Amino acid sequence: MSFPSIPELIKKKRDGGRYTAAEAEHLVIGVARGYVTPYQAAALCMAIFFRGLDDEELAAWTAAMRDSGKTLDWTGVPGKRVDKHSTGGVGDKISLPLAPIVAACGVGVPMLSGRGLGHTGGTLDKLESIPGFRTQLSLDEMIAGVRDLGMAMGGQTADLAPADKLLYALRDVTGTVESIPLITSSILAKKTAEKLDGLVMDVKVGAGAFMKSLEDARVLAKRLVATAGRMGTPTVALLTRMDWPLGAACGNANEVAESIDVLEGRGPQDVVELTLALAAEMLLLGGAERDLAGARARAARAIQSGEALERFCKLIERQGGDPRVVGNRALLPVAPRTAVVAAERDGFLQGMHAEKVGLAVVALGGGRARAEDDIDPGVGVMVRRKPGDAVRRGEPIFEVTYRETGRLEVAKRHLETSLQIGDSAPALPPLLLERIA
Amino acid sequence: MSFPSIPELIKKKRDGGRYTAAEAEHLVIGVARGYVTPYQAAALCMAIFFRGLDDEELAAWTAAMRDSGKTLDWTGVPGKRVDKHSTGGVGDKISLPLAPIVAACGVGVPMLSGRGLGHTGGTLDKLESIPGFRTQLSLDEMIAGVRDLGMAMGGQTADLAPADKLLYALRDVTGTVESIPLITSSILAKKTAEKLDGLVMDVKVGAGAFMKSLEDARVLAKRLVATAGRMGTPTVALLTRMDWPLGAACGNANEVAESIDVLEGRGPQDVVELTLALAAEMLLLGGAERDLAGARARAARAIQSGEALERFCKLIERQGGDPRVVGNRALLPVAPRTAVVAAERDGFLQGMHAEKVGLAVVALGGGRARAEDDIDPGVGVMVRRKPGDAVRRGEPIFEVTYRETGRLEVAKRHLETSLQIGDSAPALPPLLLERIA
Repeated sequence: MSFPSIPELIKKKRDGGRYTAAEAEHLVIGVARGYVTPYQAAALCMAIFFRGLDDEELAAWTAAMRDSGKTLDWTGVPGKRVDKHSTGGVGDKISLPLAPIVAACGVGVPMLSGRGLGHTGGTLDKLESIPGFRTQLSLDEMIAGVRDLGMAMGGQTADLAPADKLLYALRDVTGTVESIPLITSSILAKKTAEKLDGLVMDVKVGAGAFMKSLEDARVLAKRLVATAGRMGTPTVALLTRMDWPLGAACGNANEVAESIDVLEGRGPQDVVELTLALAAEMLLLGGAERDLAGARARAARAIQSGEALERFCKLIERQGGDPRVVGNRALLPVAPRTAVVAAERDGFLQGMHAEKVGLAVVALGGGRARAEDDIDPGVGVMVRRKPGDAVRRGEPIFEVTYRETGRLEVAKRHLETSLQIGDSAPALPPLLLERIA
Repeated sequence: MSFPSIPELIKKKRDGGRYTAAEAEHLVIGVARGYVTPYQAAALCMAIFFRGLDDEELAAWTAAMRDSGKTLDWTGVPGKRVDKHSTGGVGDKISLPLAPIVAACGVGVPMLSGRGLGHTGGTLDKLESIPGFRTQLSLDEMIAGVRDLGMAMGGQTADLAPADKLLYALRDVTGTVESIPLITSSILAKKTAEKLDGLVMDVKVGAGAFMKSLEDARVLAKRLVATAGRMGTPTVALLTRMDWPLGAACGNANEVAESIDVLEGRGPQDVVELTLALAAEMLLLGGAERDLAGARARAARAIQSGEALERFCKLIERQGGDPRVVGNRALLPVAPRTAVVAAERDGFLQGMHAEKVGLAVVALGGGRARAEDDIDPGVGVMVRRKPGDAVRRGEPIFEVTYRETGRLEVAKRHLETSLQIGDSAPALPPLLLERIA
């Protein structure tokens, strides 16, 4: 097949044209093979930022990204498989309790997760705070985990959607991250490479999320659901609130501990609620239940029965970690010092800016300002009062676990400015905002 | 001075922000030094394509491009200096007679020209069809030429506005050429590096020009005049018609011959008219005359007196060429064969698509499809009937001088499709459309 030159194809998008499926594929393959140079890819991404990709272009673009690498081959592995992807938030440890719950209910979960960057945390970093836990699994190990245990939790591998790795690294340094179609294709290229029977998207909305407004989040969610559907992966998106942190724990080891709390039936209400809501969607997509209410009840039973926790222990063991952390939290790393940030006045907590809490964790060393930074798993913030709570002057809002005083000072400034205290009880939005299917 | 990161600066433009003069300079210097990578520069150019640069940003951007290299130092060289720049057309040999006319009237002309690319020709290629003529002058040789002879005609040197070379090469392959501010900065970075007392822009409009519509050309001309003025170079732009070729000769050696015709007082009417109009503007900017009518008359006298032709002979000699070509056109290279493209019907020539005539010259080997192509100086097209002329079936419209039959066939197809013949005499637009000062 013969195509216009790469500059001509860039101009086509620049001037508002639409790509044929073959042209979209030609461009993506070109990025992967190098006949589209990085500077051409950068100009193209900026043109797409301004002009967008329609549904057909986006599906073809994403399919080419997916097909630039390997995909999971489930031949001989019985059952259905679903996964969840979150657009990222603060205190968002949901994947940790979620995967074992769903697996315990008989639906396979090949969970490929990412690392934290900026103010948002990452599932891999959290899991790695469990001593010995290994997240670098090959695709074959992922498949074996799902076959033997109903689940596996690993990171992206180099052979999975390599075009996405190239493009994402390029977008990151060329100001072209914030494009709905490019975000959609980046997420779905990897998720559809898992060859799932269903996908649940947790699209975060609010001050701590990539999408600050409900409207923007809705646009992204609809693109995700439509594109994945076109590509043959039934997908549901939940729009969920990320104005303040989820649960109490923000950090790495402390989020593992809170995840275990959830699996022991005593997790924070919001974390439990979101975990069950996402689990219900996954069980529905995985064909384990017929309606959401039944699916949610089944997920709750997997917690109550201890089956989900048992599954999590087995996962830790299988992936090289020390499963005794479940019974003995002291085996998790913890930084040596603690400090408190207290309320400056009496009143009601109106808000707690999630991004600032996330940046406090980064400042402590528990997150990454740059992708190459190391993580200190033992530092973190525990949120002791949440928006809506009445507070008294001097009462601890945050407990900080830290290693270095200099870092503490920066973290404290973030935490102090994250708080809004007012005179009356605020009206709070619900955690679950919308469901898009 | 501290700046936001390069990705942040790209996003600023992407989101419609404006750069401070310092930020614009930081970015351009970054391109030249490499701390702005090619892929970042490409994304930035695409963002500028969509968002533009305002007058202040553009002047700062262009000044930084100019200052990325050397500039001409006129210390000790008396008099004023002006130059002309054309946005490119077909049969546009105006620079060749223009420079000696202006120099003969006492205004210095340090003419830095380019090569042909695509359907448009280039002054350097034309000059080099004179046996021995050397266009690769150092900046010192340019200055010495203006000091000793009142003129020099050379090409861009590597030390002149190197940031422009990098950016232009990048824009060419990333679909970001067609941006008014980037075009403006590219032209003016080089022209203002000549440290002129005045600049005349010949902005071409029409089917054979980069700017197809009067409106687009006007926008570019206004940007050029305003930006150069802001940078301290008084500039006038003429919008001139480029629907069909200028004069009769299209090629290289044949355009040199036609240029000599102009200096001998017997050039084609349109070439003479445009040459005198541009010369008048240059003499005015150079302070040699006080009004356009007087300046035009003075330029015409420089032709009539033979002074301009004498100056051209001296230029050829000084730059290593054989000045005997002036008296003996047979010393210019000429391809061995000729062919004719004739009118297919009786009628009036309504139009002659300049771009197609230009592509015919490229097909013959007289132009470049790619920048690295060689030029055959002896091939070309002579236009024997112009739009407005009555033609009879079988009457020659084009005479083609060629070397290879295969090339002739391609050229003929371009030439045949360039013609429109109708039943009545067409109303033709004037050559000089507008003056912007």
